[in-house]
Parts: sequence; C-alpha cells; structure tokens
Amino acid sequence: MLHAIVMAGGAGTRFWPASRVALPKQLLPLAGERTLLEETVTRLDGLVPPERTMVVTAERLLPAVRRQLPQLPDAGLVGEPCKRDTAPCIGLAALLVSREDPDATMAVMPSDHVIHPVAAFQAALRQAAGLVTESPGRLVTFGIRPTYPAEGFGYIQQGQPLPVVTGAATAHRVASFREKPPASVAQEYLAAGTYLWNAGIFVWKAATILAALAQRQPETLARLRAIADAWDTPARADVFAREFAAIKGISIDYAVLEYATDVAVIEAPFTWDDLGGWSAVARQRGVDAAGNTVVGRHLGIDSRDTIVHAAADHLVATIGLEHMLVVHTPDATLVADRRHEEAVKKVVAELEARGWTDYL
Amino acid sequence: MLHAIVMAGGAGTRFWPASRVALPKQLLPLAGERTLLEETVTRLDGLVPPERTMVVTAERLLPAVRRQLPQLPDAGLVGEPCKRDTAPCIGLAALLVSREDPDATMAVMPSDHVIHPVAAFQAALRQAAGLVTESPGRLVTFGIRPTYPAEGFGYIQQGQPLPVVTGAATAHRVASFREKPPASVAQEYLAAGTYLWNAGIFVWKAATILAALAQRQPETLARLRAIADAWDTPARADVFAREFAAIKGISIDYAVLEYATDVAVIEAPFTWDDLGGWSAVARQRGVDAAGNTVVGRHLGIDSRDTIVHAAADHLVATIGLEHMLVVHTPDATLVADRRHEEAVKKVVAELEARGWTDYL
Repeated sequence: MLHAIVMAGGAGTRFWPASRVALPKQLLPLAGERTLLEETVTRLDGLVPPERTMVVTAERLLPAVRRQLPQLPDAGLVGEPCKRDTAPCIGLAALLVSREDPDATMAVMPSDHVIHPVAAFQAALRQAAGLVTESPGRLVTFGIRPTYPAEGFGYIQQGQPLPVVTGAATAHRVASFREKPPASVAQEYLAAGTYLWNAGIFVWKAATILAALAQRQPETLARLRAIADAWDTPARADVFAREFAAIKGISIDYAVLEYATDVAVIEAPFTWDDLGGWSAVARQRGVDAAGNTVVGRHLGIDSRDTIVHAAADHLVATIGLEHMLVVHTPDATLVADRRHEEAVKKVVAELEARGWTDYL
Repeated sequence: MLHAIVMAGGAGTRFWPASRVALPKQLLPLAGERTLLEETVTRLDGLVPPERTMVVTAERLLPAVRRQLPQLPDAGLVGEPCKRDTAPCIGLAALLVSREDPDATMAVMPSDHVIHPVAAFQAALRQAAGLVTESPGRLVTFGIRPTYPAEGFGYIQQGQPLPVVTGAATAHRVASFREKPPASVAQEYLAAGTYLWNAGIFVWKAATILAALAQRQPETLARLRAIADAWDTPARADVFAREFAAIKGISIDYAVLEYATDVAVIEAPFTWDDLGGWSAVARQRGVDAAGNTVVGRHLGIDSRDTIVHAAADHLVATIGLEHMLVVHTPDATLVADRRHEEAVKKVVAELEARGWTDYL
C-alpha cells in the first residue's frame, strides 16, 4: 500500500513579506487559488487517500495546516518541535507508518513545489512503486531534465538504464549525487545530458529507509524510535521535544542516498517548479495584457514586467514601473527591483538584527 | 485691524493616495509634524489672533478642520457647499469680516504652502498692511523671485518701485499679471529679472475688494450679499447652498486683480514652496544618510533618491530602488518612478472611470 509523506516544515524567506515565520511559503496560494500544501495533497487524490497521507510540519504551524487540510485525520498531522532537516522527518514518518503497515511503501515529497499535470505525476509515483516492488531494497528518486546550468539544485547522474514498459518514463540506476555545483560544473552537467535536477521526491519501503538509517545514522534512529514508542502515550510531547532536539539535523540525501547501492532515478514526466522566488510565481501565473503578474487589485500606468501581490481589497497603483516587485501585506510592503529579488534575504536578516520581529 | 482669511478648500490629487477627497493635501502633515493647515494658522501666531482668523474650506471638510484647529471660534470656520474658486471665497469672507469691522484689512492666503521663516512672513504681512494704510484702495500681492522658468505658476511683472523703509522687502507697483506662460515666455521672464511668481497671498481692505467685486462681478457679489444677509438666520444653510451654487467660479486674479489700477507687489522676504508634489516634500524634509526621504518605517537595501511615505507602524522595505516613490496607506499603495510623478492624476482619473470611489 502506498503512503504519502508530505514535508511541510519549510520556513523560507524568499517570499517575505507574503511569507512569514507563522505563514511560510507552503501555506500560501502562490501559484493559484489553493495553497501549495493544498495543491500537494490534492495532487494525490485517487492515488493515496487521506488516511494514508501524513503531513509533517513545524509544531507552530499545526493549526494553520489543520485548517487547510480538513480531510486529513488527526493522526496524519505531525508537528516537529524543532527543525532537523529531512532525514529525521522521514525516519520518524517511516516508523509511524510501519506501526500499522510494516510493508508500507512511502512516497515522500515537499509541500511547496508546483507540478503538472496530476495524471503524469501519479503515473510516475505508480511507476516508482513498481520499481520498489521489483526490488524491495531500492530507493527511487525523481530527476528533472535541466533547462539551464542551475547552481542552486542538487544533481543526480543517470547510470545504467532500467527496463521500463512502453510509454513509461525512463528510469536509470543512479551513478552519483552532486549537491549545488558551481556554475562551471553545472554547465558541464547540462552539456553531458546525463544529469538531472533532484526533485526531492522519493519512493521507497519504510523498512528499507529505516534499515539504511540504522546503518548510517544509528543514534538518530534510536532517538526516533524512542519518540515512536512514546507516540500513543501521555509522554509523547515530552519525549518528542527532548529526543528530536537532541538529533543532529541532516538531509536524507547526505544521510542515506549518497551511500545507498540500489538507487534509481525516474526522469520526471511532469513539469516541476520549486518556486524559488517571485519570478517563479510570475512564470506559473503568467502575465496580464500589460505584461504584469497580479494577485490582488492593481491599477498600472506605463508599468510592465512587474509582479504585484497585494492583500485582499488593497489597491496597488503603479506608475512607470519596469521589472519590479511589489508585495503588500497588512503590516509590511516590499518594493524591489526584480534583478535583486534574492536580497529579500537581506531584508529578513536586517529585521532580525534590528529586533523588528513583528514583521518576520 | 488685520484679519486673516485662510483658503482651505483645495482638493488636489497630486498626493494620492496620502491625500483623498476626504483628506486633501492641506490636512496632511506633508512637510513636518503638523499639517499644512495647522502650520498656516500657527504661522500667524502673534500677528493675527484666532478670533480674527477665518478658515474657508469645503463643507465636507469642516469636521477635520475643526479637529485640527481647536483654537478657532466656530464663527472662524466657513464650509463652502461647493467649489467656486477664490473670488467667491474671498468676497464672502470680506462680507463676513466687514459686518463686525467695516474698516478691516484682510490678509488672504492659501492653506497648503510652506513658508519660512515665520518672522519674515509676519514682517511682510505688516509691510503689506502698511502699504494699504498708505493707500486704502490698494491691493497688495506677494511675489517670489523665480529660480527656474516654471510654466505652472502665475507671474507678476514689477513696475515702478514703491518707497520702503530700510530693511523692508522691496515693493513695486504691478505692471501686469500673466497666468501660466509657455516655457519660452517663462524663460524670458526669468531672464528679464522683473517678473515674480504669484504666491497667491494678498492684503487689502475688505471694503476695497468688495468695491472691486461690485464693479467687476456684480452678480456674484449680489449672491454673496444674500448669503451674508442670511448668515445669522435659520436660512443660512439653504441660502448658502442655493446662492453659492449659482455663482460662476472664478479666481480673484481674473475677477479683480488684472483690472485693478492700484496694485502693489512685495518681493517675498521668505522662502515659499507651494508643495506641488512628492519631490517638493523631499525638498522640504531633506534626505537621510542613504539619500532617501522617509516618513514612517523604512528598511532599504541598495535604495536611494527614493521617497517613502507609510502609515503608522507599516514597514516599507525596498531593494534596489532609485528615484522612486512609495506611498502606503491602509487601503491603497502607490509605487511610481519619480520621473512620472505627475501621472498620479491619471491614476485618480482611472479610479473615477472604474468607479473605484472607495480609493478616491
């Protein structure tokens, strides 16, 4: 049986001031009417039912996640007491899923990516589950065909091809992983044609990932087991807080994938966007007749190539703007030249430095 | 006795969205801590007491004006039922002032200009009152030495010099008036050195301006007399509304000044700014260490030459902005290239066209 683990603990700063500590990217309707988290769970409709879907988020975000996902049972919402990267998150989910279904196959995915179309995504997950059935100790990853020499992504090198049925996406053994290469290397990878971006989506048996963690991260797994053992007792919160805090944060890639021997990569038959910033939002939403991307109420005079994102009923008027970003929220507004979009991080850092925490 | 008439009925759009139909420029603290209207009345302290100060504004603005000027008696606040330019406003004020003080001298001034220093302004008003005492039928205007060939101002040509005491500002007979000349003419005026900008500030006897109106605008004056006659009766509001609406709007310059024979101009011994837009605000307020003019809370990254004006407690963060304007209010925000500052009028016109009156 296929279970879904949706990782929704992210707390990025690229969408400030729309995203906040209390309302990060995945909880915002950045690419459409629904939030990215809602889209992610809805994308599983017909493949993984709510009772086999688990959303792992930050404890403080649980109320907001609960509001967005009323269809999930309480047992499907896990709130981490602190941030410890993906390996502890996935390990705990594997333990919790295994309690009911020791033979569970898990599809693990981020909650803040945009993927189309749904049918191709579900077909790829089914294909991955098939690759796991074929070889139960296998870890399956998804790779995106690069379109430019991105420095910010991890790369997966395709090795020997795996046999697939006609019409299915190509699948290969993974030859190697490489996290965020410099531009020159990224350029080589692009030219080689055998490197894919790591989409951060995985399919494997819970038992397999737990065995790998037992081998590579025994202390982490021991602490996760203590948490799982206390899960149905009154001590859950205390044990979760204490043991999780004691774990060293590490990604599943560094903890397990780079050392595993039977790893496959499916070349994604769907479009994928990790929505790394406002320009990605513009890419997803498209532009209006004047060439602007607008969420909210906008009145533009001689303005183009501009992104406007405003809270409900607030009017943003622009005059003579070109390639700009205007993000209005009730208590903070950002106006930026899109060429310097990444400096949003500096704004957030400066807010922390000044102690202006109300705006974070 | 010197009376002051402050004209506060303006409803400009250049400061939208900070200024609104319900809160125009003169009621905003654009150049400092106090509103322009507050500054205008305070500027008279020690020269004209509140009981001889009359503020003529739009009827709908009376509550806001009352809040800003608690020192004025009720009789000092006049709310016009509709807008009819300066001649009807001044004529009515002259009639009302004459009832108590038939020999009154009136200083008439706009409520939305920035003037420094106060002492020089008061000295100039005293000098003007002296010129009126010397020749009771005289109309005294104030001229500003031009610093550039402005097309948007009226010009006053200096004629024969009038004798002044040592240390007083120079005064001349007025040779001619010219409203808003084209650039080439403005350039000639600047080069000639004998043309001054019309500051829109006047000193004269109420009886003199009424006599001039009787000659040039008899119908208007008749209607104004009907209003003044009803002023202390229960019919005031009805008569004011009916008669004022029937008057043709005309400026005092066109109605009277251009035809008068004994007109003097004092070259203002004070600095004067009619605050024609946001760049004028920056001129008045100066810039911070980063070269920006900020009212409110601002966090700038690589931003300069930018004006930020935000509502209380709202944070405006800017990245990579140069020569921009960001005006935030609770329900509308304007972001503009300062080179196109004058297009704010287009925004207001478009709001009217779309029927988005809440934002006007």
